[in-house]
Amino acid sequence: MKKIGFIGLGLMGKPMAKNLIKAGFSLTVNSRSRAPVDELVALGAREAATPKDVAANCDVVITMVPDSPDVEKVALGENGLVAAKKQGLIHIDMSTISPIATQRIAEIEKQNGMAMLDAPVSGGTVGAEGGTLSIMVGGDESAFNACAEIFAAMGKKITYMGASGAGQTTKACNQIMTGGIYAVMSEALVLAAKSGLDPAKVVEVLVGGAARCWALEVRAPKILKRELNPGFKASMQLKDLRIVGETAHAVGVSTPMTALAREMYEAMVIAGDGDLDNSAVVTVWERMAGVVVKGKS
Amino acid sequence: MKKIGFIGLGLMGKPMAKNLIKAGFSLTVNSRSRAPVDELVALGAREAATPKDVAANCDVVITMVPDSPDVEKVALGENGLVAAKKQGLIHIDMSTISPIATQRIAEIEKQNGMAMLDAPVSGGTVGAEGGTLSIMVGGDESAFNACAEIFAAMGKKITYMGASGAGQTTKACNQIMTGGIYAVMSEALVLAAKSGLDPAKVVEVLVGGAARCWALEVRAPKILKRELNPGFKASMQLKDLRIVGETAHAVGVSTPMTALAREMYEAMVIAGDGDLDNSAVVTVWERMAGVVVKGKS
Repeated sequence: MKKIGFIGLGLMGKPMAKNLIKAGFSLTVNSRSRAPVDELVALGAREAATPKDVAANCDVVITMVPDSPDVEKVALGENGLVAAKKQGLIHIDMSTISPIATQRIAEIEKQNGMAMLDAPVSGGTVGAEGGTLSIMVGGDESAFNACAEIFAAMGKKITYMGASGAGQTTKACNQIMTGGIYAVMSEALVLAAKSGLDPAKVVEVLVGGAARCWALEVRAPKILKRELNPGFKASMQLKDLRIVGETAHAVGVSTPMTALAREMYEAMVIAGDGDLDNSAVVTVWERMAGVVVKGKS
Repeated sequence: MKKIGFIGLGLMGKPMAKNLIKAGFSLTVNSRSRAPVDELVALGAREAATPKDVAANCDVVITMVPDSPDVEKVALGENGLVAAKKQGLIHIDMSTISPIATQRIAEIEKQNGMAMLDAPVSGGTVGAEGGTLSIMVGGDESAFNACAEIFAAMGKKITYMGASGAGQTTKACNQIMTGGIYAVMSEALVLAAKSGLDPAKVVEVLVGGAARCWALEVRAPKILKRELNPGFKASMQLKDLRIVGETAHAVGVSTPMTALAREMYEAMVIAGDGDLDNSAVVTVWERMAGVVVKGKS
């Protein structure tokens, strides 16, 4: 069984690492905060001082960190994975970062005898804890096949999407839709509320037709009860929509709807609401219209 | 049993009228085209020469016409419903028109001893034929209750939304979401295609998560097979999004996402594609990016 390293034990990384231990893998961990490292060590993991040390002790290293510069530092920094000069090491980056940054890092790792897979996830902390994440993977297909058991320990639906960056581009498409749908839904809910309709009744009618979506089914009822805690933080949605903008520019696609949705998330974060759920972008429209979306029934 | 008039036997109106005959109602019809009138008369309906004549012979008159000016002409024109001076007549407008125009017409009809219900539908020709439309109703609640059997003959989910215009405002909220979701989905599909991913695989992954929606489930597979025939015509979606703009302005709600989506439908109609399905707005993005969204698998 492969020896696995796990770098980045945040809200997502910690439960994912726990699922690997549960599946019987020997785990070496490294993270910026003390508490989750202690927690994993108590469960049987070993600690390593740097990403380089993690790489030296493992066959596969997983990274789960916030953004492109974080992955770059862990992979290419002074005490990074590449510095371990470990031939055949597989690096699985499960963070959501830029496909372009991914391809750059993957190229350098390849030149150093490593293989990189980009394997961002969807499903949030609930999926991370339950081991039911959706995982979309790009990179070398034989490396992907070699890691099948590892992915299976963390996710339910695992899809190989193509060459390096293909996993991140798929995640970018997902984030276009989630962020865009919340922005569109905000306009419907605020129009309903300001027109004096019961937004709860409007949601009930709309989910019965062509407007049906996860956002209306799962998140709109929470908005109506003003339960705006995350789920998935708006500040992270903003980061992801910035990635979409860079990616679309790089491949030559104009994304005006996403650009506008991104600016609304920008306004939300500027207003100090970046730690709320991404569906709470409705507050931007509420502020513009001077109305609050609340269920009457 | 109430005697019903039906004005506007188009793609939606004709099957709705047939369902009323099937339910046992005595029907008087009036429409601009000859063929559907003959078809309904062959099924037992009577023909009337003008909306005024329809009103003179009926207890309830249903209108199903394209836009606000059409309803205004039928209701308030020289040979319109009001001209029949029939006390107690109920006018059910099932067209999708402006809530503001609706309230204006309803007020005049009320002054003339009539009651008007706005009762736009969703579910398309399939719902019209099967009698499974969703119907969202605004106007006087006792008039609504008096028409329960009539609605039941044409629809499945019938919801009373509130005062005059409330049905049309609910429909406007629905159209914000359908048009907006197609616009957002277009950006995801075109980014996937131009990045060299298999859009069919991307759709498969996305429907498994928070991006799940009717558009991805039902329409994206048709786009991937280039089946762009309507369904619901893009030119009608554009009309509906223009109604949203007027309505939002009137009540004081800013709807930038919908405004942008509307301009993309405008571009689609200008390009001569207004008779395609509303989901085919993806062609606007395809043209901008120089790529066609097609399934590889």
